[in-house]
Amino acid sequence: MSALLRSGPAGAMVIGASPVLGTGAEIRSVDPRTGEALDPGYPAASAEHVERACALAEQAHPVFRATTAEHRAAFLERIAELLDERLDPLVERAHTETALPRARLTGEVARTSGQLRLFAAELRAGTWQGARVDPARPHRAPLPRADIRQRRIALGPVAVFGASNFPLAFSTAGGDTASALAAGCPVVVKAHQAHLGTAELVARAIAEAAADTGMPEGVFSQLVGSGTDIGTRLVSDPRIRAVGFTGSRRGGLAIAATAAARPVPIPVYAEMSSINPVLLLPAALAARGAELGAAFAGSLTLGAGQFCTNPGVVIAVEGPGLDAFTSAAAEAVAADAGATMLTTGIAEHYVTSGDALAARDGVEEIAAGGRPGGAAQGHARLLTVDGARFAYDPRLQAEVFGATSLLVRCADTSELTAVVRSLEGQLTATVHADRADHRLAAELLPLLEERAGRILFDGWPTGVEVGHAMVHGGPFPATTDPRSTSVGTLAIERFLRPVAYQDVPTALLPAELRDDNPLGVWRRLDGEPGRDTLTTDTTDSTD
Amino acid sequence: MSALLRSGPAGAMVIGASPVLGTGAEIRSVDPRTGEALDPGYPAASAEHVERACALAEQAHPVFRATTAEHRAAFLERIAELLDERLDPLVERAHTETALPRARLTGEVARTSGQLRLFAAELRAGTWQGARVDPARPHRAPLPRADIRQRRIALGPVAVFGASNFPLAFSTAGGDTASALAAGCPVVVKAHQAHLGTAELVARAIAEAAADTGMPEGVFSQLVGSGTDIGTRLVSDPRIRAVGFTGSRRGGLAIAATAAARPVPIPVYAEMSSINPVLLLPAALAARGAELGAAFAGSLTLGAGQFCTNPGVVIAVEGPGLDAFTSAAAEAVAADAGATMLTTGIAEHYVTSGDALAARDGVEEIAAGGRPGGAAQGHARLLTVDGARFAYDPRLQAEVFGATSLLVRCADTSELTAVVRSLEGQLTATVHADRADHRLAAELLPLLEERAGRILFDGWPTGVEVGHAMVHGGPFPATTDPRSTSVGTLAIERFLRPVAYQDVPTALLPAELRDDNPLGVWRRLDGEPGRDTLTTDTTDSTD
Repeated sequence: MSALLRSGPAGAMVIGASPVLGTGAEIRSVDPRTGEALDPGYPAASAEHVERACALAEQAHPVFRATTAEHRAAFLERIAELLDERLDPLVERAHTETALPRARLTGEVARTSGQLRLFAAELRAGTWQGARVDPARPHRAPLPRADIRQRRIALGPVAVFGASNFPLAFSTAGGDTASALAAGCPVVVKAHQAHLGTAELVARAIAEAAADTGMPEGVFSQLVGSGTDIGTRLVSDPRIRAVGFTGSRRGGLAIAATAAARPVPIPVYAEMSSINPVLLLPAALAARGAELGAAFAGSLTLGAGQFCTNPGVVIAVEGPGLDAFTSAAAEAVAADAGATMLTTGIAEHYVTSGDALAARDGVEEIAAGGRPGGAAQGHARLLTVDGARFAYDPRLQAEVFGATSLLVRCADTSELTAVVRSLEGQLTATVHADRADHRLAAELLPLLEERAGRILFDGWPTGVEVGHAMVHGGPFPATTDPRSTSVGTLAIERFLRPVAYQDVPTALLPAELRDDNPLGVWRRLDGEPGRDTLTTDTTDSTD
Repeated sequence: MSALLRSGPAGAMVIGASPVLGTGAEIRSVDPRTGEALDPGYPAASAEHVERACALAEQAHPVFRATTAEHRAAFLERIAELLDERLDPLVERAHTETALPRARLTGEVARTSGQLRLFAAELRAGTWQGARVDPARPHRAPLPRADIRQRRIALGPVAVFGASNFPLAFSTAGGDTASALAAGCPVVVKAHQAHLGTAELVARAIAEAAADTGMPEGVFSQLVGSGTDIGTRLVSDPRIRAVGFTGSRRGGLAIAATAAARPVPIPVYAEMSSINPVLLLPAALAARGAELGAAFAGSLTLGAGQFCTNPGVVIAVEGPGLDAFTSAAAEAVAADAGATMLTTGIAEHYVTSGDALAARDGVEEIAAGGRPGGAAQGHARLLTVDGARFAYDPRLQAEVFGATSLLVRCADTSELTAVVRSLEGQLTATVHADRADHRLAAELLPLLEERAGRILFDGWPTGVEVGHAMVHGGPFPATTDPRSTSVGTLAIERFLRPVAYQDVPTALLPAELRDDNPLGVWRRLDGEPGRDTLTTDTTDSTD
């Protein structure tokens, strides 16, 4: 990379191996505390820049997908290393652009590099190929069986749209990029305009890591521009084969519509809107209503409520336990000092969408927190409504992105069940339950499974562990595709497709499908999982 | 089931446990040899019938998806048993409706019951759950890790549209139905109007098997009606959560558009159009051009060419080998007696689409076979064009459903490569290669991987083995979703989605995720695959 890329943010995109200045109207990120536009300005990409990024990605694709898992693991680890090395400038720039606390951003850099390392480990573990071997049965009657083997291959170049609320972990080098690169798919990111400088610093690290590990040019590019212009062009480009998106319902649906209207439609993994219901079951509520109320307020106000998994609705049966919960929660919300939100746009939308919710029939405000000074102020807010009304009025399920939650008071457990049945798709559903609640919880669990990607007990939905078993996804409108996750190792499967090889000569078979299993990957041999090799007996007949 | 269901075709649909006569306009299948409309007539479903089938499916869903894998395996096996028991009436009716030879239909019943048994075995094998367990790490710094576990659950009721060309194996109890039922999804089939009687007989067997094995009413229904009316209603119904389709490109795209326009979009697995390129590499062609030509004609004319995997295009470099191939193929095609096609509509479309292809600039007819008498006659046809023209004119890639193939003559291997690069997505790609061709084959293989779901060497694409490693799928327009297969055990994944369980008490966990792994399923334990149980040490911290 040139010297330009080693200094601070320069207002540049990354197209292939090179920093490139856009030629369109200048875009600037804004300090949300002051409303002040930040240096440098980022001239937006032109159609030619989109074209070049996609052409390079397409060119890189056959080379990149043919790299070994070990080689791609080294690439991901090198990105992780560079991000960790550049912790301080990354945190400083992200702090200026997002007003998120430095400690949180420090953790987010670690999460981002840890996520890249987890995918590196997953690549080496060798289950992701989905290798299957059904050896020939030349003597089968009435017809012999051919030798058939299966593996998964990379889909092709992926467009990634980062999220405003995680400038690192769900952005330029976030989960979508990490899982797509792991799968062997080149990535073209459209930088989020709320943190252009952070995005640039991260993009440089990726480009450097690609050069350091000998990856083909075009394996990664990052463009700057508006969603309606550059974003739409990117999703429409025939060389893009899948899209990862984290953001608003409106944005996600627009991308899905663009993708579906292509001559060749492509998968869109859009993570959009979720209100993350929290169910407080009677025994738990009776035992520790106040304690739950205080803890809930902590989860609600964390990061100014700017989490996809923020608890936007609490559902419980009325009684002394709920009274204690409500008092404690209201007290904590009222005592909350507020926080600067990510952008002035988000703060404005927070107020209007919260006011719209508060103005619905039957909704009352229980408590509101303080508002700090600054351009993009956000304040905690606790509203309430009764269960019958909530189950009847779907507009009460509109996400308010920020620290607003709606407490749904139910007359009894059957009303609570009816409320659960009325819920749209969610990223998470939380249950607080004591042993005496388990019978009710067992009844609710299947309903929650139908409606959420992750079900958690006796905790809070904010905080998404990056591991093998995590699901950060769920039925619509939480995502456009409930069949996968955007966090955790399962995410690699989004960007792969199966291919079968029938009677392909050994010399031409991919290594993971060869008789001697030289990579030692997990395979299903006639259906049975293991790391076995094929015996000569079996293979004689096919070669 | 009532006595009505034990006799021959009665003109009935199946809605839940009951035979139901439609109330709309009567539809009849037609004997394609005579053009004669067959008894009985099938009154089409009304909107209320669709409503009732979907309501029953939705009602069955929570019960059905909670059945054990063993229970569903018994259900699938009972269907298989009933189909095998009723082989003769099934073959007779299907023969009358499709004109397919009895021997072929006998094999197809065996394939259909075998497929159901394979999914039963897959259910018992216990990898399909995708179970993952990341145990808690209470002492992890800076933050403890929660206990997180993952499994896959059924998506919900699935609409299935059967294919005309496989009245059993890709129809009422075909691959889509078998894999959806295996996954735990209720199925609503829209019967194909070309084989309504066969569809009815099979639907009865499924309904009986459901009753025999104690499955909830609504786990299966079958409706009769037009695609534009009943089909569209079904795909639009909010209770339907996924669609399986095998048929034309037009039909598949219409369903995909309907599904994408729903308030809550759903996955559509449409298998549509493929011309299944066959590459004859130079050394193989030189060694056995004539032999390949004769064998090719056999694959082309099999079943009147009415296979999704019919070899619709042959690509080779000009020379004596290709001349020998062409002579032998032309001779065999000219000698072919022709065959009755599935329907008069298919036969008419075969002629018009074949004529349109033959009329394109640069296309010449090399040979044409005989035409049998009858209403829906089809005749074999071999056309040719040069490689430069083929690579330039995408309309030469339009599927002609039937025994027509286009021989693409290339000047040299680089033109052959260009022709391969010009290909759309395919179900299969076939390579005939001798050892001396392996270098060229190795160069072509990545291009074929990008364009096909299955790559086969030294064979013919017709004939799709049902096993673990099969992929019957591929990039658009072969299918609407290249991430899966419609044949083989991997198809179960189409109808599942992952759910994560965080700190869920043991008593409430699904069996496959419990510490002691009572079902003995394969799981990834902290990423490592195996059938291990969790030790007490690990689990003490989470309970």
